[in-house]
Amino acid sequence: MHRATLREVADKAGVHPATASRALNSATEGMVNATTAARIQKVAKEMGYTPNPIARSLKTSRSSSIGLIIPDLTNPLFPPIVRGIEDVLRPVGYNAWIVNTDNQQDVEASAVESFRQRNVEGFVFATAHLHHALLEEMAAASTPMVLINRRLASADIPSVTSDDSTGVTLAIQHLVELGHRNIAHLAGPQDLSTGVTRRRAFRENLEERGLPDEAGRIVVCDAWSEEAGARGMLQLLDSGVPFTAVLAGNDLLALGAYDTLAARGISCPGEISVIGFNDMPYMDKVYPPMTTVRIPHYELGAEAARLLLEVLDGPERHPRSLLLPLTLVVRGSTGPAAA
Amino acid sequence: MHRATLREVADKAGVHPATASRALNSATEGMVNATTAARIQKVAKEMGYTPNPIARSLKTSRSSSIGLIIPDLTNPLFPPIVRGIEDVLRPVGYNAWIVNTDNQQDVEASAVESFRQRNVEGFVFATAHLHHALLEEMAAASTPMVLINRRLASADIPSVTSDDSTGVTLAIQHLVELGHRNIAHLAGPQDLSTGVTRRRAFRENLEERGLPDEAGRIVVCDAWSEEAGARGMLQLLDSGVPFTAVLAGNDLLALGAYDTLAARGISCPGEISVIGFNDMPYMDKVYPPMTTVRIPHYELGAEAARLLLEVLDGPERHPRSLLLPLTLVVRGSTGPAAA
Repeated sequence: MHRATLREVADKAGVHPATASRALNSATEGMVNATTAARIQKVAKEMGYTPNPIARSLKTSRSSSIGLIIPDLTNPLFPPIVRGIEDVLRPVGYNAWIVNTDNQQDVEASAVESFRQRNVEGFVFATAHLHHALLEEMAAASTPMVLINRRLASADIPSVTSDDSTGVTLAIQHLVELGHRNIAHLAGPQDLSTGVTRRRAFRENLEERGLPDEAGRIVVCDAWSEEAGARGMLQLLDSGVPFTAVLAGNDLLALGAYDTLAARGISCPGEISVIGFNDMPYMDKVYPPMTTVRIPHYELGAEAARLLLEVLDGPERHPRSLLLPLTLVVRGSTGPAAA
Repeated sequence: MHRATLREVADKAGVHPATASRALNSATEGMVNATTAARIQKVAKEMGYTPNPIARSLKTSRSSSIGLIIPDLTNPLFPPIVRGIEDVLRPVGYNAWIVNTDNQQDVEASAVESFRQRNVEGFVFATAHLHHALLEEMAAASTPMVLINRRLASADIPSVTSDDSTGVTLAIQHLVELGHRNIAHLAGPQDLSTGVTRRRAFRENLEERGLPDEAGRIVVCDAWSEEAGARGMLQLLDSGVPFTAVLAGNDLLALGAYDTLAARGISCPGEISVIGFNDMPYMDKVYPPMTTVRIPHYELGAEAARLLLEVLDGPERHPRSLLLPLTLVVRGSTGPAAA
């Protein structure tokens, strides 16, 4: 079967091939008068024209693809983020390449290099550390990119993050309403903005509410994992500091805290209330069902994709960043403070 | 900076450019004498040569990429499968494009078309139905592909599946050892090989062991979801057929069964034991911790990627399929049969 060429479409629509090309590419369609674009698209559809992305990629250095760099797809936070990104990109003809880095910088660097060779038009990073040489260098080179769930200490790169401070406030407020005054925090690693922001918000909340200060009530875990949470909880219990509730830096740390409490025969929430952060899938099914701050992961992904498309459309615009609101999901792991 | 060309590498190594090209492509490296290949690779590294995949793709119709078609990345089965695929492909220079179809055939067809335009070298499908016109057509056209966790009724396409029959046998044996004789089955939809295979194995097990036959003890759920499992469990309970244990077609159906039992105030495993299938993440954390047949999803993905690389290397070989062994993970949702 003969496959209609761009030139044939342009001829039939009575426009220059360059105009037809712009009208048939979602990223450049806006440069063409809307009525003309619609006519060209109609003609292309009637003639069964489909662009050849690889040939176009070579000619225009545009690949209609983006590189998506995540730590680990098997961490349950990331599938809904990836889904959100894909659901926004696919309808406009973009595809995402995914790579899992396990937070290893050499894997990340070689993935970026490989994606560049494939002429990706931009990047979404969910791996950013607070100080991140590779990203700073890419930002300096004006590489189109968006950070997700992370911010850099230095460079001004567009990002989509959740409003973690408000999330922490919702959690502390809930505990205070239940009569808790001695509240501890299992903080996540402090090389990620999420770990730092949540810990800072925790301290501010204690201060503002006149609660007993955080001396000895913050344990910084060495990973965002169940094992690290279990160890952190042991450390808290063994420190002798009194507390009746724990805000964990994320759900995995909270699950680890569950394990330690169970191993010690301490009832949750009877003796100690636990709050997680993220609302990963199935946190309503664990025992006890987890009270946790819900992050809208799918929306984080979708907004990041929209932001990246905006960056690709207008590279000269000042970088925008989005902060998405959070909610507290109250379930069975929090209860009245023990007398 | 000057980027070394393939010809310069070949000249320096004293070989023909075609030989250099083969040696520098993991998919064709085996065609070159090993010592020669190692020398060429060393020279290329010293000269800082990096292939341009897009240019090569256009010239050779090889893109070093494959298309991966899955129903929904947010279903917890799929992230480890995708991870397994990526971990095998990346070291040999391949990348995977992922698309989520939500089992919609039009989405699947347009994804396949889009991947073909991007010159993918092969496909991995995790979406196959027993009768699947698109896959049959692709198989007839000798498209390199591998099915994962699914088989087709007709065409002989390489596949990697778990040994579900043996998994069902392990589950029934465990229940029989606990004294159960009246066992029910919440079967999954019967348009997928997994649903059919597990149901058939259930019936065969009852027959072989001389257990009360399955009349009224099999309910076919209309989706692989918690909601469908909850409805199926209601139907079983309301049917009046006696049973003390249920084998669910997968963990989501089992979680739905949990909900219905809880809503009816029926204790699990005190009154009714429940077994799932898959061992999704966090099934050790639900309440009660779920006894379930574990499918090695990461290995399914890794084996599928290896199989596809073999197909790409030797398209003339007869299609091979792999059956991976399963294990039963005994936790808290199964107990002695109620008297």
